[in-house]
Amino acid sequence: MDPKREQVVVVGGGFAGLSAVARLASEDVDITLVDKRNHHLFQPLLYQVATAGLSPADIAAPIRSIVSRNPRIQVLLDEMTGLVPGARRIALATGATLAFDTLIVATGAQHSYFGRDEWAPFAPGVKTLDDATRIRGAILLALERAETNRQENVSRREEFLTFVVVGGGPTGVEMAGAIAELTRQTVTMDFRFITPRCVRIILVQSADRLLPGFAEDLGACAKRALESLGVQVRLNARVTGIDAMGVMIGDERLETATVIWAAGVQASGAAAWLDAEADRAGRAVVGPDLTLAGRPEIFVIGDTAMVTDADGKVVPGLAPAAKQQGDYVAQVIAARRRGMPAPPPFRYRHQGSLATIGRQRAVADFGWLRLSGFMAWALWSTAHLFFLVGFRNRMVVGANWLWNYLTFDRGARLITGVDAPSA
Amino acid sequence: MDPKREQVVVVGGGFAGLSAVARLASEDVDITLVDKRNHHLFQPLLYQVATAGLSPADIAAPIRSIVSRNPRIQVLLDEMTGLVPGARRIALATGATLAFDTLIVATGAQHSYFGRDEWAPFAPGVKTLDDATRIRGAILLALERAETNRQENVSRREEFLTFVVVGGGPTGVEMAGAIAELTRQTVTMDFRFITPRCVRIILVQSADRLLPGFAEDLGACAKRALESLGVQVRLNARVTGIDAMGVMIGDERLETATVIWAAGVQASGAAAWLDAEADRAGRAVVGPDLTLAGRPEIFVIGDTAMVTDADGKVVPGLAPAAKQQGDYVAQVIAARRRGMPAPPPFRYRHQGSLATIGRQRAVADFGWLRLSGFMAWALWSTAHLFFLVGFRNRMVVGANWLWNYLTFDRGARLITGVDAPSA
Repeated sequence: MDPKREQVVVVGGGFAGLSAVARLASEDVDITLVDKRNHHLFQPLLYQVATAGLSPADIAAPIRSIVSRNPRIQVLLDEMTGLVPGARRIALATGATLAFDTLIVATGAQHSYFGRDEWAPFAPGVKTLDDATRIRGAILLALERAETNRQENVSRREEFLTFVVVGGGPTGVEMAGAIAELTRQTVTMDFRFITPRCVRIILVQSADRLLPGFAEDLGACAKRALESLGVQVRLNARVTGIDAMGVMIGDERLETATVIWAAGVQASGAAAWLDAEADRAGRAVVGPDLTLAGRPEIFVIGDTAMVTDADGKVVPGLAPAAKQQGDYVAQVIAARRRGMPAPPPFRYRHQGSLATIGRQRAVADFGWLRLSGFMAWALWSTAHLFFLVGFRNRMVVGANWLWNYLTFDRGARLITGVDAPSA
Repeated sequence: MDPKREQVVVVGGGFAGLSAVARLASEDVDITLVDKRNHHLFQPLLYQVATAGLSPADIAAPIRSIVSRNPRIQVLLDEMTGLVPGARRIALATGATLAFDTLIVATGAQHSYFGRDEWAPFAPGVKTLDDATRIRGAILLALERAETNRQENVSRREEFLTFVVVGGGPTGVEMAGAIAELTRQTVTMDFRFITPRCVRIILVQSADRLLPGFAEDLGACAKRALESLGVQVRLNARVTGIDAMGVMIGDERLETATVIWAAGVQASGAAAWLDAEADRAGRAVVGPDLTLAGRPEIFVIGDTAMVTDADGKVVPGLAPAAKQQGDYVAQVIAARRRGMPAPPPFRYRHQGSLATIGRQRAVADFGWLRLSGFMAWALWSTAHLFFLVGFRNRMVVGANWLWNYLTFDRGARLITGVDAPSA
């Protein structure tokens, strides 16, 4: 650390933050990367951990090891809590503060229950590794309980065999498909008293179609694929209540022990800390160069930012968009350092949308090309593997997928972090 | 389930219980395997999970999938709480009861703090997957805190860089060696402000040598190997106090944030539930055929049992001994069913002791052959791989080891289940 060198502080080691760091690494600046977790997470595959297809370490890599080769990058396990008023410093949860010349805030998003936070304990979202292992334990435990309650109590058994996924975007579609395959295969092979026909999986979507970000026919295609796996898809359906015993969908009550929340996200609290203008989802509104109004030294990117790109469109909260923004701000910073004109306003290049349904089906939408079925699945697998950080992860994920594919085995089927069964 | 068929209930899916089930599978009996966890755990490798070398799913396999091929075996996720008085039934934590003609109790052991249970929160033992991921998080978090406290407070930094392992048996020796390699390698590669020289690892052993179950020269050999990795070995040293900030060793106070308990085990509460005679460690005393006195239909095996074998020696609490006992009781049951004479009293065949120290050193004691160094390590690796349940696990563990060995990478270096840092 050389105090005379420009100090760039990056908060958040997700796709946005890491891509900014990667691009800035060749500049003569000191970079401090702050994250409240010690690992970068490949979130698009989190649903695979939640359904026992992959292990946590397969989709996560320690942030330190990702950047360890560059001595001008340091990593701090800490959480930003705000700006220090009147100074170019951020405040941290441990009580320390950190000086910056340039600040990049990329703290991501968390799930949002649309103001119904009391639902959170009964309907975990899929955002962190701990979320995913908790959901995995809940699904497997529900099957165990159904097996135990086989004789005594039919309605309790049905409650344990009903799985409700809220939200018909990619995460909800992928979760519902993966739960269908996990339960069908596990129940068939390993359980004695419950049968796959007893299992109900219900995907609740408030819009009139699945995958609103995709072309319309692909939404219909995903619906057919899910239905062929036995998933009930309910469109135009709104969740009005969630408690320990079930869900209200409109006026209808559904008894269920397992609800998974894939419906809404909300930006992390960064807009509030930064005292910046925020949109309804809590995202900080940034200008065409991704800085805050009146604060050219503070960039906000990724899911934390509300970005209207050069084409006038709101940039979606997807991993490729986050990466492109990280890359862009690094270019802006580099141009400033060289006294060169600023690059043109940020423009999002949509590379395509992919969602997978179960083991062999997927839908892909590249604008110029739309695929569904096995080809889309193969493409999806390759794309995900390609983006995984760290060679070891790619290798392990590849081996696990191949293994799952060839054998239907799900080796990560562990119930951990859950107490032993009780009455 | 045919109620006219003999009902064998096996409680515990560890090495003892599973080997009994495996051998009984060919008999015409119904078997119910009860475990409070859904997975069999390869405990000898748990220290590898605790030190980020392996992932939880690498050393565990769902019990259901292990026995899924045999329709006469059913699995119940539940916990035995006792016998139903006056009936051949066991009581379960969920409130149900289960009838048996023959009962095999193999509920294992848990750590024992020698009556100082108040130490438990500060010195986790290494018995379950949750223990192991908690210890992994604690070790990695201590390094992070040391890096954060680099400037302000030297004594706090030292506290975070001091790791104390209590107990000089195989688990303690393996933990200390693995922590030494994890910290040395991680600190060197990934941290900027702390150096390997700052890290202190202290192994506390109350006896006058390490590895009391091994030949004497191998204990000395393990000590030298640990010392060459930078571990301080304290023999004849007794822990007299543990709290959130440190450990008392005799009258000496050591400030440390991380204490790992590998000192003592205590049998699960089975002897008390069974109203059986117990030894000091809580193990149920069984006769030469491994049944309780006056209850020929109740077998107790594995770490839950105090077995004096045909040679008059107390059988040690090791995985091979547990497997042999499971196998033996299955033979006793088979002989009874055929009206054949009972097999001769149980005799333990010691196959050897192995302990590994770091990546390339191990000590092995087969009685007729003693090895140390790389050969012992290679043997240890092969033996462990060979005993791993499930082909997938063997393959993944093998790939992970090879990868660690070739690259020094530790991909499972995740802090999970721990809250974000605070002051």
